[in-house]
Amino acid sequence: MYDDKIFEIIPSLINEKKVKIVLFVIDGLGGINRSGKTELEMANTPNMDKIAKVSSLGMIIPVLPGITPGSGPAHLSLFGYNPLKWEIGRGVLSALGVDLELKKGDVAARGNFATIDKKGLLLDRRAGRIPDEECVRLCEKLNSSIKEMDGIKISFYPEKEHRFVLLLKGKKLSPYISDTDPQKTEVQPLKAKPLKKEAASTARVINALVEKVLKVLHDEPKANSILLRGFSSVPDIPPFSSTFKLKACAIAEYPMYRGLARLLGMVVMRKPASSEDIISLLKENYENYDFFYIHFKKADSYGEDGNFEEKVKAIEKADHIAGEIFNLAPDVLVITGDHSTPSELKSHSWHPVPLLLYSETARMDGFEKFCEMNARCGSLGIFLSVYLMPLILAHAGKLQKFGA
Amino acid sequence: MYDDKIFEIIPSLINEKKVKIVLFVIDGLGGINRSGKTELEMANTPNMDKIAKVSSLGMIIPVLPGITPGSGPAHLSLFGYNPLKWEIGRGVLSALGVDLELKKGDVAARGNFATIDKKGLLLDRRAGRIPDEECVRLCEKLNSSIKEMDGIKISFYPEKEHRFVLLLKGKKLSPYISDTDPQKTEVQPLKAKPLKKEAASTARVINALVEKVLKVLHDEPKANSILLRGFSSVPDIPPFSSTFKLKACAIAEYPMYRGLARLLGMVVMRKPASSEDIISLLKENYENYDFFYIHFKKADSYGEDGNFEEKVKAIEKADHIAGEIFNLAPDVLVITGDHSTPSELKSHSWHPVPLLLYSETARMDGFEKFCEMNARCGSLGIFLSVYLMPLILAHAGKLQKFGA
Repeated sequence: MYDDKIFEIIPSLINEKKVKIVLFVIDGLGGINRSGKTELEMANTPNMDKIAKVSSLGMIIPVLPGITPGSGPAHLSLFGYNPLKWEIGRGVLSALGVDLELKKGDVAARGNFATIDKKGLLLDRRAGRIPDEECVRLCEKLNSSIKEMDGIKISFYPEKEHRFVLLLKGKKLSPYISDTDPQKTEVQPLKAKPLKKEAASTARVINALVEKVLKVLHDEPKANSILLRGFSSVPDIPPFSSTFKLKACAIAEYPMYRGLARLLGMVVMRKPASSEDIISLLKENYENYDFFYIHFKKADSYGEDGNFEEKVKAIEKADHIAGEIFNLAPDVLVITGDHSTPSELKSHSWHPVPLLLYSETARMDGFEKFCEMNARCGSLGIFLSVYLMPLILAHAGKLQKFGA
Repeated sequence: MYDDKIFEIIPSLINEKKVKIVLFVIDGLGGINRSGKTELEMANTPNMDKIAKVSSLGMIIPVLPGITPGSGPAHLSLFGYNPLKWEIGRGVLSALGVDLELKKGDVAARGNFATIDKKGLLLDRRAGRIPDEECVRLCEKLNSSIKEMDGIKISFYPEKEHRFVLLLKGKKLSPYISDTDPQKTEVQPLKAKPLKKEAASTARVINALVEKVLKVLHDEPKANSILLRGFSSVPDIPPFSSTFKLKACAIAEYPMYRGLARLLGMVVMRKPASSEDIISLLKENYENYDFFYIHFKKADSYGEDGNFEEKVKAIEKADHIAGEIFNLAPDVLVITGDHSTPSELKSHSWHPVPLLLYSETARMDGFEKFCEMNARCGSLGIFLSVYLMPLILAHAGKLQKFGA
């Protein structure tokens, strides 16, 4: 169902019309209704319902039927990138998650602090899930002892608990390195191996680095070793703005989404402090951009927690934002999610995500409420998220006829 | 719309969870309603309607819009195999249809008994559609006269009327042989030609075989010649069980479906003698397998006959089976068809097939009846049959997240 060719054609169809497009992503929006109603059905959403009445509804499938996406592939799809073609490595995603600015050629890996015994065998792959502040202290200790190896700049950044990000900057780095994490205990951590010839020197640096880390950490009671996995570099992905000829900006609070937007070349606004602040940021910058990606995280977070009530409330907060956006009268307003996060499943899921598209060229489906049960019958149908961007461009009046 | 890449990724996403999945295929289920209602709409189906109420509905397109599939491609799609990639040759399908066990390297062809005149020109490509018993007698006659040629074991198996299956077993056989059937009369049957170099010796065997057959049949009044077409071997298709990590079995009465399931590595149960027997077989084996493919033929047969009333009754019988399956409380129950067979068309058709998916993670569409008119608005949308397996795995809780 992925036709990369259309994305080769689209740039040639885009005109210069100045427009305002807002893509409002309510993370994890979709739900299931085994207990009666979905969160969106339960929520009191007067603004979105009013907009739905004069909009087209539909549903989007993030990757393919049955496939539950991580936030990376789910967002790539929303932004018009085939998520099966453009994979963002685990290390890069983690680096984005701690707000690092990655440059082309940098290599990032996800790390665990771990516990080994005197023979070097793994006792605990997570070093007893040490607290966050311990992780900060350990990263500082490593950063002050190890700054560079073989001309490669080395940095450790704390994540949550035992997790950290390793960042390598330097010349001729390659991400094609095998994990050192054996994914089980009672064995030694693995040596990093080059998966491509070009990665031989990077693998050597990694193995020498691990040796040095063991010396620095040798007197730590728990975190006396590290495990590395998901070595990756920023993919050579075409920028969003030039692909779709839209001056794009991102309003997002959470690091991963900010990082992903930056990776695609969007201008990332300062972190919004509240729902009101999201609206302020949008209004302040409204004249300066064509495309606004606004990310609202809480619906997903509460979905992951299995907290139906709070997810409902989060959606109600998002509804307030939706109303304010609509008041700015953008040419196209899309409200959807990157994926479903049914609180009944406490996780991301594969279920199609409700989609609302407002524009002066949208068929008015006339539904009284924006919800899954109406969206499944909407005139946009149920289609892959990757085709949302072409649809948005069309409704913005920015796509010319294909062929004569 | 086919993304083979996802089927490369899926095995890495499958977990070890033990589940019970039932795929109940009502052959030729879908219909059209030019006379008012489809067969499924007309049928009294209290069980499927009750299940529909708490299930997701949708429709599946067997191959692509407008493409009417044979049973082979239609079933391959249902089982998660791209039907445009995995072709099963005519000869192999016919061999499966007469319940032959094909091994890798065997070559099968479909045969007609035919009538030639004294000059060897074809008078009748079907030998006057001789009755089935004649076909049996002729195959016995050939089998007793010709057992082997050039180290290749030769066997003839009767089908219906003038049709038979030719099976070759031996070393270095190749299926890349042109047909000997010229598809018209008043010409000589064609010589078999190798379509690849490696097939030269097989083609020689075939041509020598035909010469010998002509001698054996020379005194037959009608069936004094044969025509061969669709030389093929079992494709090197990855087994279903390892592809989807499911211990799979098949409950099917008709040889072709039994054969296809066997070809995919499913364990094929003994032939069920009745609807009740299908249920008994399912119950007897319920603990031993994860995935049950149950095939119900009659809806298709009556559809092909153009018998609306009997197709309705067949669906009502299937409804009884559906109810019994549901009582076993499988994790996932899917009820659908391999393709539509509208009795108004007296043939397979390209129309999307109604689909019902029950699971504890399915959105409850709440429809009162399982039928085409509701299925078209179901929350599963209208999608290609090949994506049904990923969707089933997802609803069974067996697919992990793709990407982070």
